[in-house]
Amino acid sequence: MAVKINQQREARPVTPGFMKANVFRGPGKFGLEEKPVPRAGPTDAVVKVRLTTICGTDLHIVRGEYEVRPGLTIGHEAVGVIHELGSGVTGYEVGQRVLVGAITPCGQCEPCLGGSTSQCQGPLGGWRLGNTIDGVQAEYALIPYAQANLAVIPDGISDEQVLLLADIASTGFAAVENGGVRLGDAVAVFAQGPIGLCATLGAKLRGASQIIVVDEDPHRLNVARSLGATSVLLPEADVVREMRELTGGRGVDVAIEALGIQATFENALRVLRPGGTLSSVGVYSGHLQVPIDAFGAGLGDIKIVTTLCPGGKERMRRLMRLVETNRIDLTPLFSHRFTLDEIDQAYELFGSRRDDVIKVAIRVSE
Amino acid sequence: MAVKINQQREARPVTPGFMKANVFRGPGKFGLEEKPVPRAGPTDAVVKVRLTTICGTDLHIVRGEYEVRPGLTIGHEAVGVIHELGSGVTGYEVGQRVLVGAITPCGQCEPCLGGSTSQCQGPLGGWRLGNTIDGVQAEYALIPYAQANLAVIPDGISDEQVLLLADIASTGFAAVENGGVRLGDAVAVFAQGPIGLCATLGAKLRGASQIIVVDEDPHRLNVARSLGATSVLLPEADVVREMRELTGGRGVDVAIEALGIQATFENALRVLRPGGTLSSVGVYSGHLQVPIDAFGAGLGDIKIVTTLCPGGKERMRRLMRLVETNRIDLTPLFSHRFTLDEIDQAYELFGSRRDDVIKVAIRVSE
Amino acid sequence: MAVKINQQREARPVTPGFMKANVFRGPGKFGLEEKPVPRAGPTDAVVKVRLTTICGTDLHIVRGEYEVRPGLTIGHEAVGVIHELGSGVTGYEVGQRVLVGAITPCGQCEPCLGGSTSQCQGPLGGWRLGNTIDGVQAEYALIPYAQANLAVIPDGISDEQVLLLADIASTGFAAVENGGVRLGDAVAVFAQGPIGLCATLGAKLRGASQIIVVDEDPHRLNVARSLGATSVLLPEADVVREMRELTGGRGVDVAIEALGIQATFENALRVLRPGGTLSSVGVYSGHLQVPIDAFGAGLGDIKIVTTLCPGGKERMRRLMRLVETNRIDLTPLFSHRFTLDEIDQAYELFGSRRDDVIKVAIRVSE
Amino acid sequence: MAVKINQQREARPVTPGFMKANVFRGPGKFGLEEKPVPRAGPTDAVVKVRLTTICGTDLHIVRGEYEVRPGLTIGHEAVGVIHELGSGVTGYEVGQRVLVGAITPCGQCEPCLGGSTSQCQGPLGGWRLGNTIDGVQAEYALIPYAQANLAVIPDGISDEQVLLLADIASTGFAAVENGGVRLGDAVAVFAQGPIGLCATLGAKLRGASQIIVVDEDPHRLNVARSLGATSVLLPEADVVREMRELTGGRGVDVAIEALGIQATFENALRVLRPGGTLSSVGVYSGHLQVPIDAFGAGLGDIKIVTTLCPGGKERMRRLMRLVETNRIDLTPLFSHRFTLDEIDQAYELFGSRRDDVIKVAIRVSE
Repeated sequence: MAVKINQQREARPVTPGFMKANVFRGPGKFGLEEKPVPRAGPTDAVVKVRLTTICGTDLHIVRGEYEVRPGLTIGHEAVGVIHELGSGVTGYEVGQRVLVGAITPCGQCEPCLGGSTSQCQGPLGGWRLGNTIDGVQAEYALIPYAQANLAVIPDGISDEQVLLLADIASTGFAAVENGGVRLGDAVAVFAQGPIGLCATLGAKLRGASQIIVVDEDPHRLNVARSLGATSVLLPEADVVREMRELTGGRGVDVAIEALGIQATFENALRVLRPGGTLSSVGVYSGHLQVPIDAFGAGLGDIKIVTTLCPGGKERMRRLMRLVETNRIDLTPLFSHRFTLDEIDQAYELFGSRRDDVIKVAIRVSE
Repeated sequence: MAVKINQQREARPVTPGFMKANVFRGPGKFGLEEKPVPRAGPTDAVVKVRLTTICGTDLHIVRGEYEVRPGLTIGHEAVGVIHELGSGVTGYEVGQRVLVGAITPCGQCEPCLGGSTSQCQGPLGGWRLGNTIDGVQAEYALIPYAQANLAVIPDGISDEQVLLLADIASTGFAAVENGGVRLGDAVAVFAQGPIGLCATLGAKLRGASQIIVVDEDPHRLNVARSLGATSVLLPEADVVREMRELTGGRGVDVAIEALGIQATFENALRVLRPGGTLSSVGVYSGHLQVPIDAFGAGLGDIKIVTTLCPGGKERMRRLMRLVETNRIDLTPLFSHRFTLDEIDQAYELFGSRRDDVIKVAIRVSE
Repeated sequence: MAVKINQQREARPVTPGFMKANVFRGPGKFGLEEKPVPRAGPTDAVVKVRLTTICGTDLHIVRGEYEVRPGLTIGHEAVGVIHELGSGVTGYEVGQRVLVGAITPCGQCEPCLGGSTSQCQGPLGGWRLGNTIDGVQAEYALIPYAQANLAVIPDGISDEQVLLLADIASTGFAAVENGGVRLGDAVAVFAQGPIGLCATLGAKLRGASQIIVVDEDPHRLNVARSLGATSVLLPEADVVREMRELTGGRGVDVAIEALGIQATFENALRVLRPGGTLSSVGVYSGHLQVPIDAFGAGLGDIKIVTTLCPGGKERMRRLMRLVETNRIDLTPLFSHRFTLDEIDQAYELFGSRRDDVIKVAIRVSE
Repeated sequence: MAVKINQQREARPVTPGFMKANVFRGPGKFGLEEKPVPRAGPTDAVVKVRLTTICGTDLHIVRGEYEVRPGLTIGHEAVGVIHELGSGVTGYEVGQRVLVGAITPCGQCEPCLGGSTSQCQGPLGGWRLGNTIDGVQAEYALIPYAQANLAVIPDGISDEQVLLLADIASTGFAAVENGGVRLGDAVAVFAQGPIGLCATLGAKLRGASQIIVVDEDPHRLNVARSLGATSVLLPEADVVREMRELTGGRGVDVAIEALGIQATFENALRVLRPGGTLSSVGVYSGHLQVPIDAFGAGLGDIKIVTTLCPGGKERMRRLMRLVETNRIDLTPLFSHRFTLDEIDQAYELFGSRRDDVIKVAIRVSE
């Protein structure tokens, strides 16, 4: 990635009533700017951001591969402190530390009430922060439908312990849940980026037996092992054949696609047992082909399930309980740490995939 | 279809111990031949066939589009009378009238015990009759794993009332069940061949509200209306736009693909609401393309479910209860009737789709 | 029921800014009073009621068997016209005709986001109207969380066609849905009051085969037949034995309890096949006993599921589609019609179960 | 327990063609006897038993609390070696080491094909071994429907590692699976006998966060902690209040009853959140009372699910994969070891609950 950075390098104070925000200006152009601190409308909250991170999707945005309007603040994963509460938001107090979900559903539209919080008010509509409204790579962020989207963080839990539950861990886990992984199932996970790694962890959490993962990066394969992978493969391998062998010829029950390209999608289909499920959380940028043989000509009882991160504070509450009870520790995924003022370096590193980077923690305030 | 027929035209008696059977000889070559009456092994039954029919898959077979071994008796849908019972088959009596499923699972292998009866002992393995062993377009047929696959037909129910439960009605209904159709859902069904028509009926049976169907044949659209379709469309129409309009812009909850071609598969994806399900029962003969937009780039919470006819006598028993209680009447789908000796004409008509043919009933014995 | 009525008998105009409302004053004491027309807070709507009805629960309230605070307006089922919209309610217009659910979830608390809209903010918390806040047996009613709870009624559909979807039809259908009724299942429904009748209809809608119902009232049994019951039984019969016989000894797949007493609960357990489900929508007033034998000593793979009416506009939208597509007609359940000024007579009749009363429609405005 | 033992104390050789078997003679009367080695019918296998154990149900049997016919060999959990295969059993070889399930479904009857393997051919019908046919506390055992019920044990896995998957681990896990435990759920388990302990392990395997268990035995509570319990309570405590406190007032999502008495059943109901599930695997010996308050008067969206051990080799295969991949280690549950000749002592110890006994391993052959 050769992004052109247009931002202040030193940490100078901002104008009163203003804040620093990482703003998208056009393909390859983004950086810190001053913006007014947002004010909460009746159903909003304004959160003083403590910790944020960069998502693969943010890379797509700054590269111009996923279109957002110039001027938008980027970022959709945040731990913060409640700075202002809208008049209609109840049960919270200014000063509480909260986790904010990447998906911020209203909870009151037809898709939400029907259980599709990610598709709130329309296709992909639940993803607002850093997509259709200003995001959270900033000192302050306005959180819409705050009543539904602020999950209070228990004392004794650090920001880093929960931040990834806002998106990638929840997504990776949902790949496993929606794939219907059962006790003792064999699961394949294609790609071990942050979401794939969380899918690996999720497969372990849900009681999979074999968890066979593929990635080209040996470091990520090592991390995968520590999270629960029982076998690791390089993509150079004849992955389909090896997975068949590892499963005694049977194939896997659930194959998770966490990359978003034809090759892995196709392999994920090919390693399934009859009646198996391909659970996809990759973001695809081109048409996909379903090979007729891998699909059993439509007669293989195959299922393909796609999942966008589920939204709402209840799921975050539930997942945070896994942190509290020491069932999961996501902090090893933070390979590097930056301050907001260093966000250009954070993007550069995260985009480069150098230095065994997995996720970068961006400290905005203490 | 220009199949070469090689068969006896008049109904002359067969050699003692022998029977007439409709045998595949090679692409375009099939017809009635004499074969020995089969004998039941310990877990088999031999059924004296009363009524059978021709499936679209049988057309693929005789045309050489789906490969089976030459010499095989074709056909997988039968009502018959128990002629001989294997020593290990209990709870039945010779002379009982039974429905035999197209899928004849063993019930005892890992896929069966895991609930995938269609994938018994391996991919598509549950489909034996007329595929890997001699089928039922014959005077007698050997039924494997008879204990699991003979559903006794209650008195007062005719052969024609239940025959289609052996395959196409069960498949069409399963498209609806596996698609997860809920009360009040909007459902689209692409193609109104026999399976598509049964999917239409199934959508009504499960409580769909709008059932929007597409077919090029006006007669089939009329039949569809009588089975529950609330709107019918010709494929010339801008089907996607019309379905969007009919659903107030929302899209359908479940789209059923019952043809097996790219165009309908793609349209089925395009008419889904976010979070909807494409339920596929078509048999595809080429690679499928998933258009990136119709797939929400993988973020639309879309599900694609494929279904082969579920097997086993319990499902047939349950579906026959719908006949007994007058919830369904499948007999109008039999547009034409033949005897076994006329099976060449039956194939010719069914293959031609002339004369408003939907399904042909082939009477083998009374 | 010997309720003491304390209300104005003639329809005289109310004081400006005031309205008539049916108010609970204490056990046996209720009737029309003047109350101020409510004003909408930011997230509320005020609805000018057009049609309401009386629920069995309302009888419990006026009799003092279910406790609410004196001074409360009773009633939780309404069709109305939007009279005033809170500042935060969007996408609606004053004057639109809407169906209001008995359960008015916020959509934004943990139970709601977890899918338990009826248990919004706490046990039974979704039931507010006529329980914890003023209800809808009044000229105007304040609807909380209006964004989530107003379902616009399509033109061409009458008030009476949809009113029962606010509670009893939705509840009766949910008994079937949560009971997991499959195509061809045998279903028993105990009691054919309004909810039981809707469960009967729901069982038909979801594709049950046998629907065996029990009630002591021959008229209700006749109505049950018209809605889909295939067998009707009087409770004097040996119901368990008869149901076993009707199902060939097998028992029913799902038994629905829609009365709320020990005898029917117990019978519902006894008629289940092994692995069957008792789906309960009765409101019980005493401890229940689970007979050890009917429960298979805990080894029968029996499920007991209880259901409170699901809340939110999406479900109402979906169910209204069944009216629009002529899949259901609930108007025959309205056996009697009254005006709001005659509500005392309506209660008296509904409570007496005289004159083949099933549900009473109470016209409040046109 | 004061069982009268009637058995040979020293290990003397049996008559050729005969074997030792632990036979029930009447309440309090059982012990080793000589019986002929069974011969396999066409669908059977005879297994030379290597390792067996005693189940709580076996105690009920020898005490006369659960009725079986005198003369029956007791026991339903076994690892053995295939000694003889029926003519109709394929894909196995004499000499293979196999796990035999406590439940031995036929796979071919209506309940089995409908997914209720435990209710094979009728209520509780899947439980044959040591209940309706001779069991496995013997040197040899006949296994019915062998095709469906022999799970080959991979090399490198010991008998003790898999034996408990035949019943108690599978049952305990099923309590969690059928209870619908989700990632991060709070789970309560009442009683930490062998099944309760396995439910605790199962809750951990499926990704519960809090796992709060109750037992009167401090040793079992310690074992529970090692298997995943996050909080342990003595029944003397005000268990309901403590669980409410531990869950921040919310209650648990799933409460597992693994004892079979009124007090724990009732507490399990009382600790549920609205909409929660009581998953019962206890065997009850008296009528149960459902307190009206704990049941939300039927309006709490509460579910009660009961589970008998699921049957069939596929589940055993799947669960054995958890052993192979080191996800579970059940061997610590074997607190004591005996030989078949010492089975009287094994019963005495297991029945007494002395010496921190949990499960006893009974070695029959090497």
